[in-house]
Amino acid sequence: MNRDPESTRTKIMNAAESTILDRGFGGTTVNAVIEQADVSKGAFFHHFSSKAELGRQLVQRYADKDTQHLEQTLVKAEGLSDDPLQQLLIFVKLFEQEIESLEEPFPGCLFASYLQQSELFDDNILDIIRESMLLWRTRVLEKLKTIEKRYSHHNDVDLESLADMLMVIFEGSFVLSQSLNENKIIAQQLAHYHNYLKLLFEEKP
Amino acid sequence: MNRDPESTRTKIMNAAESTILDRGFGGTTVNAVIEQADVSKGAFFHHFSSKAELGRQLVQRYADKDTQHLEQTLVKAEGLSDDPLQQLLIFVKLFEQEIESLEEPFPGCLFASYLQQSELFDDNILDIIRESMLLWRTRVLEKLKTIEKRYSHHNDVDLESLADMLMVIFEGSFVLSQSLNENKIIAQQLAHYHNYLKLLFEEKP
Repeated sequence: MNRDPESTRTKIMNAAESTILDRGFGGTTVNAVIEQADVSKGAFFHHFSSKAELGRQLVQRYADKDTQHLEQTLVKAEGLSDDPLQQLLIFVKLFEQEIESLEEPFPGCLFASYLQQSELFDDNILDIIRESMLLWRTRVLEKLKTIEKRYSHHNDVDLESLADMLMVIFEGSFVLSQSLNENKIIAQQLAHYHNYLKLLFEEKP
Repeated sequence: MNRDPESTRTKIMNAAESTILDRGFGGTTVNAVIEQADVSKGAFFHHFSSKAELGRQLVQRYADKDTQHLEQTLVKAEGLSDDPLQQLLIFVKLFEQEIESLEEPFPGCLFASYLQQSELFDDNILDIIRESMLLWRTRVLEKLKTIEKRYSHHNDVDLESLADMLMVIFEGSFVLSQSLNENKIIAQQLAHYHNYLKLLFEEKP
């Protein structure tokens, strides 16, 4: 008798997420998830009508956490300085420090995992991912536009793609750190983005 | 009667590569590859003992092409200038132009696809990917070390991770362009890497 259905549900989702990050959605069976979560098939289908439905709920949970993480880190950075350039630099630095403090290898990104198998998912799922990525673009771009008004910058830099570059650095360094088994790659690459922003916008002496 | 076994082999490999890029290795069945390549099951197993063996040969072929692409582009860049900074800037610009000239959406990176399902592959396969990524690090780093001797630069920049940044930009922008369905993202991000290198090493006036 299970008195805590929410915890069974969470157990299944956590096991599925970790299995999918190792084997991909197409390489993950319901049986493998059940075994990893240590629950019965009945319990699984009580919570999820199908593997596809589990996949949808997983990416929605991931996107919600991602948004929360983005917004909270932005609020934190904005609380630490009044200057928009400093806010953005602190924002990047906070992610850098967070990744540096991880003791386990970074588990990977569920968005990238799904995108590598995009034909297995319907448009609703791909839209959830797209909206998450566009939110990063929007938030960083807002900050860059405020910075642009206050600071001179080196050359005609395209702000939208400069905003995208943060997500690009995250996703690309996840791939490299996965292959080379070096967690520090992620922090190092964020440091380069930080440095690039400084070089672009630093005040002329 | 098939008089051209090499072409059947290539047909199978091309069909498999494209299917894997859309559905992942775990989501790709031998039947799907056979259907896509329009060959018989007998022909498939004449050429490949198993799906795993096909997976190994595919990534080896991909790595060989990747290395050839890297080395040829480097030789081309070195032929266009004697200055190491200009050579590296041209090297990046050549990739940017190549991607800009693509008419179809970029199909994705087989390395990243495999890494997203790393538990489905043995160490030999993951080593092929790792060696390819390390070759990019080595080649770009050699160039950066030559540049460092000749140019002053802004601050203590870590050259190894700066070399890695090219691969990071490639892989990260593949993910973003896949999600947002914007091919131009890859060229835009390469342009930022190009710009960052210029800001780091440009001669002081």
